[in-house]
Amino acid sequence: MDGLIMDFPLNLQAILRRGEQLFGGKEIVTRLPDRSFHRYTYTDMAARAKRLGVALGKLGMRRGDRVATLCWNHYRHLETYLGVPCAGGVVHTLNLRLHANDLTYIANHAGDRFLIVDESLLPIWDSFKDRATTIEQVIVIGDTVPGGAIGYEELLATASADEYSEPEIGEREAAAMCYTSGTTGMPKAVLYSHRGIVLHSIVSGMAGALSLQESDTTLPVVPMFHANAWGFPFTCTFVGAKQVFPGPFLDPPSLLEAFEQEKVTVTAGVPTIWLGILQVLDAEPGKYDLSSLRGMIVGGSAAPRAMIEGFQERHGLKVIQAWGMTEMSPLGTVAELTSDLEDAPPDEQYRFRAKQGLPAALVEIRARGAEGSAVPWDGQSLGELEVRGPWVASSYYESPDSADRWTDDGWFRTGDIVTIDARGCIEIADRTKDVIKSGGEWISSVALENSLMAHPAVAESAVIAIPDEKWAERPLAVVVLKEGATATADELRDHLGREFAKWWLPDRIEFVAEIPKTAVGKFKKTALREMFAGEATGAAAP
Amino acid sequence: MDGLIMDFPLNLQAILRRGEQLFGGKEIVTRLPDRSFHRYTYTDMAARAKRLGVALGKLGMRRGDRVATLCWNHYRHLETYLGVPCAGGVVHTLNLRLHANDLTYIANHAGDRFLIVDESLLPIWDSFKDRATTIEQVIVIGDTVPGGAIGYEELLATASADEYSEPEIGEREAAAMCYTSGTTGMPKAVLYSHRGIVLHSIVSGMAGALSLQESDTTLPVVPMFHANAWGFPFTCTFVGAKQVFPGPFLDPPSLLEAFEQEKVTVTAGVPTIWLGILQVLDAEPGKYDLSSLRGMIVGGSAAPRAMIEGFQERHGLKVIQAWGMTEMSPLGTVAELTSDLEDAPPDEQYRFRAKQGLPAALVEIRARGAEGSAVPWDGQSLGELEVRGPWVASSYYESPDSADRWTDDGWFRTGDIVTIDARGCIEIADRTKDVIKSGGEWISSVALENSLMAHPAVAESAVIAIPDEKWAERPLAVVVLKEGATATADELRDHLGREFAKWWLPDRIEFVAEIPKTAVGKFKKTALREMFAGEATGAAAP
Repeated sequence: MDGLIMDFPLNLQAILRRGEQLFGGKEIVTRLPDRSFHRYTYTDMAARAKRLGVALGKLGMRRGDRVATLCWNHYRHLETYLGVPCAGGVVHTLNLRLHANDLTYIANHAGDRFLIVDESLLPIWDSFKDRATTIEQVIVIGDTVPGGAIGYEELLATASADEYSEPEIGEREAAAMCYTSGTTGMPKAVLYSHRGIVLHSIVSGMAGALSLQESDTTLPVVPMFHANAWGFPFTCTFVGAKQVFPGPFLDPPSLLEAFEQEKVTVTAGVPTIWLGILQVLDAEPGKYDLSSLRGMIVGGSAAPRAMIEGFQERHGLKVIQAWGMTEMSPLGTVAELTSDLEDAPPDEQYRFRAKQGLPAALVEIRARGAEGSAVPWDGQSLGELEVRGPWVASSYYESPDSADRWTDDGWFRTGDIVTIDARGCIEIADRTKDVIKSGGEWISSVALENSLMAHPAVAESAVIAIPDEKWAERPLAVVVLKEGATATADELRDHLGREFAKWWLPDRIEFVAEIPKTAVGKFKKTALREMFAGEATGAAAP
Repeated sequence: MDGLIMDFPLNLQAILRRGEQLFGGKEIVTRLPDRSFHRYTYTDMAARAKRLGVALGKLGMRRGDRVATLCWNHYRHLETYLGVPCAGGVVHTLNLRLHANDLTYIANHAGDRFLIVDESLLPIWDSFKDRATTIEQVIVIGDTVPGGAIGYEELLATASADEYSEPEIGEREAAAMCYTSGTTGMPKAVLYSHRGIVLHSIVSGMAGALSLQESDTTLPVVPMFHANAWGFPFTCTFVGAKQVFPGPFLDPPSLLEAFEQEKVTVTAGVPTIWLGILQVLDAEPGKYDLSSLRGMIVGGSAAPRAMIEGFQERHGLKVIQAWGMTEMSPLGTVAELTSDLEDAPPDEQYRFRAKQGLPAALVEIRARGAEGSAVPWDGQSLGELEVRGPWVASSYYESPDSADRWTDDGWFRTGDIVTIDARGCIEIADRTKDVIKSGGEWISSVALENSLMAHPAVAESAVIAIPDEKWAERPLAVVVLKEGATATADELRDHLGREFAKWWLPDRIEFVAEIPKTAVGKFKKTALREMFAGEATGAAAP
């Protein structure tokens, strides 16, 4: 027997309607390319989003058509976030930091028919436009519009908001698309549904999750081409927050100036951004009035505890760690203190806040060990994190060969090796590709690396798995000593032995002058494996 | 094109799983009939809810079967809230304050197969059991179980939690049922879906709505047989709040003792409850330490501004007005200050907080005037409030003759006459049955009554509509003067004229010794209409 409740579809039209009807006078502020600030209201935004949808329809956009964007964070990008899906299209954010080859592959694989591009990013488009076979119409945001393209404002001028009539959109229809560049293989696309985004928005507004609300002023530093800027444009429109967009100015002084001037309450970005901000604040304490800032959400990779402490202790600023994935829209977990920790000593609080946190409502987690069985929630056992929920991808778009990322019972395999504690708080220990599987158990390369790098003589260390006949794999540590410092392999093993079980200790420790790194500064472990894997294990495993 | 997102059903199993997995150690506290406090954890509750589901299955409960409850607010009632729907049944809360005739009608109309009843409420069951034709099995919570019935603990003993295997429940299936006693006709049933309850729970947890969260300790004074205790048992389990249930002890001292002892942070109830509490606090200020209490949610009928001010100014306690209906699960609007009012003078803040508030996320509102057209959001124009949303009833259960409560385009007609201001904040002015339709416009009887009762000479006043040839209806005021006070009809009309347009003023003002009242103290307007409607209008309408 079904309930007798309205069939109210959870689609982005509900977000746009709410933003327009209840928060029409609230402000949306953007830093323009000339560094000045553009301001308008939700009423303006909603009217323009509708006009964009109507105008794209006149250009030939049909239901489900992909409309690519190649843009910084600004108000017109927000208009595409809402205007395209509310008119039945799919907004596909292209990552402007990718190589032209990847952009070519992605645009063609997605079948993008339209491209909306910032004038300043036209050189990127120029670098792959000859190979992009599906894009029929280019729309340029800016003053200089190349031949064959149409200006964004010119496009909007072809439509009025009155022409907009909400198409009926089922909640499971696609609304947005984002590619994730895995470490292996070609980029893969997540196709977000209207329903998933709406649910993600509500939960992001929950007290205890991100608590985004009408009284907030938000500034997402995270780019709008990264997993929907963590949902901020949708959530903030839904709850009626004042929204501030930094445009292309992501340097610490520009951001700090915007935080102070606009009285930003919540901001979000990757640790690199906050490390830069912290340096500036440390150099000139008190220069900026950040008393409005209630939370700096950090995600994308783990925030160092020292950074969280530094902001809190030296500047009274609260860093909130969260974890998610493009495949998760992206919110997975948030490390807000649980009530039992409210009166805990600072050390215990920081230890918690440096973890990735508890799952948001409707997100479910579990972890499975090296042998495939569920690991206990003891804060120690390592397992690969698996997730499910109503905004988690069920497959990649047209990528049948990646079906192994989902379990037989439909959970998504995150590729993260974690511990889960009794509270349900996860801590990421490693990636599956880097974890060492020894005798049916996992050893965290990251944990060993962190411990080695805490040794006074060690400048850098990478730990990799090397094949082993008996144990399948064994850890091998590659170490760069600090200039002038000395340490033997046995000394380092003793050091590790204070923290880890004997079978975790690397049998071999190789001293090198330098560890090869990727373009973004991560250890190139593939290169290390090639260097060392061929050699025989030097010592018997314990 | 559909999104590629998991098909994760929004059902109560997701609430129970989350409560159990993440908040297993959190407490649930109940005041027992002997006034002592029973305590156990979410782990205990979840195991017992599962056992209840299994045991009912063994007793013959099938998918969609209605399981009636006749219970106070306590932990076993919570177990039925979750255990019954998670096993595929529908929990149907019977209102223990209804007359035996109504209970008979309701139980039979619902087709209840099982009844779970508090031992102390057995006399109520006895009063209609002979006429309840569908109830096959009675389950008694308490020590003394009459012949033919089974004890609740005895029932649970027939099942173990391990036997529970989650049935697959579609999110649109029915989970709960509640009858609303309209002012006319027989009671009508709202049949809540799993999906509606889950969405209602998430939104209740949003910052800016009720903000219910893990760190809260909640005590719903509102009975669990009134619109699911405003969703508290579901929401609180979902977010992991500590839950306190008052059992049958709803008197101010018992409640205040529980607030203080359990450090309650959020409580909820009708104005009558809070008026009683305020009297006790005023009589003995400082007796109770209520420093933990962050919000007292008031709904069910409008909270007087004087009460809101009294709590705030004299005791530092925050009353939060909300509005909803059984047909709305029940959350409709919440009067939390919007950011533009944060620095407003107290008078303006109180004026706002005495209104019913802004719609919660996913609730949409509009109002239509006497002639059926949409009224502007100007804070003045009167219209009947219409709502829609994913937890609003689409029809009553087996009540085809009440289809006129829904508009042709599917909105629910609330029967409330309201104004909506530019913020989207509603203020209830009247009920449709009491509003006066004069010359194609509405006149609020409640507004006129309040103004008359603010006159120093007036003790009580009721305003009714009487038929009028030219204007269709005209207002007539019935006034009881204070002992020893005098006032003429013209004086009172002058008084009203300072606040209202001329065409609003009652043509006739009748002075009486007493206004007939209903059992709960409301004006019996039907009796007044009978008394006065027959007489000719004494004066020409303006």
